[in-house]
Amino acid sequence: MRFHVLTLFPEMILQGVSHSILGRAIADGLIRVEAVNIRDFSHNKQLHVDDAPFGGGAGMVMQAPPVYEAWEAVSQKIASEQGEGIRKTRVVFMTPAGRPFSQEIARELAAEEDLILLCGHYEGIDQRVIDEIVTDEISIGDYVLTGGELPALVVMDAVSRLVPGVLGNDDSAEDESFSGMYLEYPQFTRPREYHGREVPEVLLSGHHENIRKWRLEQSMRTTMRKRPDLIDPARMSKEEAKIYRRLLAESEEYGPSSE
Amino acid sequence: MRFHVLTLFPEMILQGVSHSILGRAIADGLIRVEAVNIRDFSHNKQLHVDDAPFGGGAGMVMQAPPVYEAWEAVSQKIASEQGEGIRKTRVVFMTPAGRPFSQEIARELAAEEDLILLCGHYEGIDQRVIDEIVTDEISIGDYVLTGGELPALVVMDAVSRLVPGVLGNDDSAEDESFSGMYLEYPQFTRPREYHGREVPEVLLSGHHENIRKWRLEQSMRTTMRKRPDLIDPARMSKEEAKIYRRLLAESEEYGPSSE
Repeated sequence: MRFHVLTLFPEMILQGVSHSILGRAIADGLIRVEAVNIRDFSHNKQLHVDDAPFGGGAGMVMQAPPVYEAWEAVSQKIASEQGEGIRKTRVVFMTPAGRPFSQEIARELAAEEDLILLCGHYEGIDQRVIDEIVTDEISIGDYVLTGGELPALVVMDAVSRLVPGVLGNDDSAEDESFSGMYLEYPQFTRPREYHGREVPEVLLSGHHENIRKWRLEQSMRTTMRKRPDLIDPARMSKEEAKIYRRLLAESEEYGPSSE
Repeated sequence: MRFHVLTLFPEMILQGVSHSILGRAIADGLIRVEAVNIRDFSHNKQLHVDDAPFGGGAGMVMQAPPVYEAWEAVSQKIASEQGEGIRKTRVVFMTPAGRPFSQEIARELAAEEDLILLCGHYEGIDQRVIDEIVTDEISIGDYVLTGGELPALVVMDAVSRLVPGVLGNDDSAEDESFSGMYLEYPQFTRPREYHGREVPEVLLSGHHENIRKWRLEQSMRTTMRKRPDLIDPARMSKEEAKIYRRLLAESEEYGPSSE
């Protein structure tokens, strides 16, 4: 899988993907990340790519031509590498106005061979080039960031983990929060006693079925308490539904929480 | 404002904050970012800080003692710098199980003098040290990432922008999506004509009041179409409520959208 990032801060992108699992996946040739500097497509000697907004207002707006030409250069490169019979490469614009990013969208994007990520800066990008080249708008959350670079790194991280071979064990991507419906259960490792706190007895029992049940119940408890919006009784297995009814009854017995 | 990041990838943190507005804010002494390597507090020669989870399962869990001791070292440093009369420094654990990060939480955190950010990795951190030191759990979104480093960078970026002086103009942080209720209006800059597309006439008119109205309506249109969940009629001004009713009537006239 190849990511092509259109950005004013190529160093930030390349440094950001050079660590940990992503860095290893790149070294192993499982994914490739290319940062294209939009400034290289500036039309003036000062290498400016922004100008004041029409209609006034604070800040500067990135101009359409350099963004378009950076996209064009990348598209031509992708086409020449893919040869005949190519499908149009998706262009994802990182923007707070986009579709909220989710594990489901990550899975959808992981099926692509090439992906172009467009990072904005300043007060935004001229709307006309967005209308012309962008196929997807994605927001990583409801908060204001300086630019699209951190969101692009977040998307590349979440997507890359789903590319076969990137995680050591092909299954381990699925055993985590948000792949399913529940948050993670609590984890414990050595030492057995730490600051007077013991590891829960069941985890030391060696009884796999009891451990599985305990972890499922812990996951459901945590999710019901912290993120009840993620709970969907319609999607539960029989076992989960039974635990769910019991936990609901318990919480009613003790009255509503004070949170 | 000072950020203290407990991490296994200090380079990733320091590189991530070295660019753009954050990099400038650090150079200007407006914010300070320190990365504390949890591995420096390992208890063995191999510098391991993780071990297999009790109860089995894939992956490794970060052990409590190195995390605790890294936190302790940072806390002592903060205490010695602040002197007498200190309040307890908040410890924010970046986790998918946390409170969803928002512009409101960013404003809340921006009021702190010191903030400790704890980044997990592998399959998580021993629950006992989380219970012992963490005051806040924050999630940047419903997707699975490799570690807490990108989330910590996202939080530092959003929070830093709200620290007085970090943005050139103190007001410009408020003129963006999610500071208020609406998404951004479209922006346009030179050239006036681009690939046959004109800049909307009103923006060239020089009529400030018409421009303001047009932008407000565009913001409301975009928000109603893309993120209706952000719309709250109870919080609208009289002017907004009037535009809102008109836009609603329009969309009913043309029938429901096919999206």
